[in-house]
Amino acid sequence: MTNLSSAHDTIRAVQWRGDHLRLLDQRLLPAEEQWLDCRDYVAVIHAIKDLAVRGAPAIGIAAAWGVVLAAQQSAPMDQALAELRAARPTAVNLMWALDRMKAHIAAGADAAALEREAQIIQDEDLAANRHMGELGAALILPGSGVMTHCNTGSLATSGYGTALGVIRAGVAAGRIDHVYAGETRPWQQGARLTMWELVRDGIPAKLIADSAASHLMKSGAVKWVIVGADRIAANGDTANKIGTYQLAIAARHHGVKFMVVAPSSTVDMATVSGDDIDIELRDAAELLSVAGRRTVVEGAQAWNPVFDVTPASLIDAIVTERGVIEHPTTERMKAVFAA
Amino acid sequence: MTNLSSAHDTIRAVQWRGDHLRLLDQRLLPAEEQWLDCRDYVAVIHAIKDLAVRGAPAIGIAAAWGVVLAAQQSAPMDQALAELRAARPTAVNLMWALDRMKAHIAAGADAAALEREAQIIQDEDLAANRHMGELGAALILPGSGVMTHCNTGSLATSGYGTALGVIRAGVAAGRIDHVYAGETRPWQQGARLTMWELVRDGIPAKLIADSAASHLMKSGAVKWVIVGADRIAANGDTANKIGTYQLAIAARHHGVKFMVVAPSSTVDMATVSGDDIDIELRDAAELLSVAGRRTVVEGAQAWNPVFDVTPASLIDAIVTERGVIEHPTTERMKAVFAA
Repeated sequence: MTNLSSAHDTIRAVQWRGDHLRLLDQRLLPAEEQWLDCRDYVAVIHAIKDLAVRGAPAIGIAAAWGVVLAAQQSAPMDQALAELRAARPTAVNLMWALDRMKAHIAAGADAAALEREAQIIQDEDLAANRHMGELGAALILPGSGVMTHCNTGSLATSGYGTALGVIRAGVAAGRIDHVYAGETRPWQQGARLTMWELVRDGIPAKLIADSAASHLMKSGAVKWVIVGADRIAANGDTANKIGTYQLAIAARHHGVKFMVVAPSSTVDMATVSGDDIDIELRDAAELLSVAGRRTVVEGAQAWNPVFDVTPASLIDAIVTERGVIEHPTTERMKAVFAA
Repeated sequence: MTNLSSAHDTIRAVQWRGDHLRLLDQRLLPAEEQWLDCRDYVAVIHAIKDLAVRGAPAIGIAAAWGVVLAAQQSAPMDQALAELRAARPTAVNLMWALDRMKAHIAAGADAAALEREAQIIQDEDLAANRHMGELGAALILPGSGVMTHCNTGSLATSGYGTALGVIRAGVAAGRIDHVYAGETRPWQQGARLTMWELVRDGIPAKLIADSAASHLMKSGAVKWVIVGADRIAANGDTANKIGTYQLAIAARHHGVKFMVVAPSSTVDMATVSGDDIDIELRDAAELLSVAGRRTVVEGAQAWNPVFDVTPASLIDAIVTERGVIEHPTTERMKAVFAA
């Protein structure tokens, strides 16, 4: 594990190397720890589309470095920005990072200046994660069990994590004593990635089938469900990994609290509500095969939306680095995120 | 497919061959259609424990044939009954079939008489399925989309199916126009078995991740969730495959109706409520590997309950061959199932 980071630090899955972007290939974890070197912006687009890099904040950061690569190679910048923007539709961090880079291009920034800006974006994300960790953990009563979904840790961000950052901070503060991670079909980010991070950190954790969450909540073992976000609308409606909405319904049914943790780059005040969020449908093949082996009869069809929208009414707290919004409404969101 | 059954009929996964029990090995479907010949009752126990045969009604039928094998081989019958009974804890059909065989043993039945009784159990199950199909389908408005969980079809019964029997009857009657099947982690019975049956029957169907059910319900595409049962308590609380409870919560949240379909052998009036049902916990390894390949980091733990309990309050109708119990209560259950 020494090739990834020191024992006292979390993994950095997105690493800038001066003339190329090095990504930990998340499709192969935990079986293999293999790095992917993107030497031009098109390679970054492929890495985003094919899920070698995933997690809303990490996608935004990778895209910013894609812009730097385009600039270094004197690619047509408008085309590079448009192609990067189209890589995936739901996570707004991608658009946010590209808009920020575009503003610098418009102001005449050269490749070196864009490189500095991308580094600032990445560093700010890490600082935001640390701050959100403290804010979110403070909401949790000591000795609580929590549940999370998908992967929102070091792998999904610049390091540390959003929801998993709160969990790390909560464990460190003695507020969280056990973590349950949902598998997160079909890509198994919870099983493959979150469990990898939790075991690596020595955090007491158990994997569960996504559909076991309600049975778990009924047992009383979980006080909070803590998840990340791919886009938060102006009214607090939150798009996140498929299954998040179902967990929010189950949480409310059982009196379990529901927390969304995301940096302000995930908040999209231009999107009025969740109804306006474009939900990515991916290839049915992701459900029809497991580990490259066909598991479903030939001729079968599948419906594979990879995100869903949790309405603000089911969310107890949205935690960002700018503060905590309890029981989010458009008014409360505007108070923190007014343009 | 001709080796399984005629094109006009559904599969028979449990077949008595005079001196052995032939089972379609459901662990290998849909990749392989391989038959397993059980030549003594211990082999039947292994087939039940290891999920070569699964589905509450099919488990009961297989156990009845196990008793016949024990009698043919002059095994100690008390021991055979006790061992078969301990094969799996949740599905009450197992206990029901063994109690029925035991009563005949107590009355002095020889192997030939026990063979006739097992055949009656199997034939009655098929007749019950056909009748439940008609009763359940009558509850569904024409043109409805429905969702199901796990496998409750020919493979889980003597043939035709419980919940899937209602779906077959509903499609034939023009009441159901589309079926969504949840994958049913960790064993993927929905993905592997239900989709196999649906495609084979030419029924319009799509596979979904278990955690996509709420997002699907929100779209309005589903009017009923239709599931089977492993045990129904005296008050209508229903134990079924893990994830059923979560679907029932989601269905209620969206105003989608929830139907449980099971033969009367699944009803256990001696169990007062769902709190008294023993929920089987299976090996964590079932969640830690997929298709024989480890997908989760070494050292990870998992919690793997394979059933849960849906409270009667979330059930709109329990359909049995003795009739339909709407909004089940102990009183309404007793009216149909009084001893």
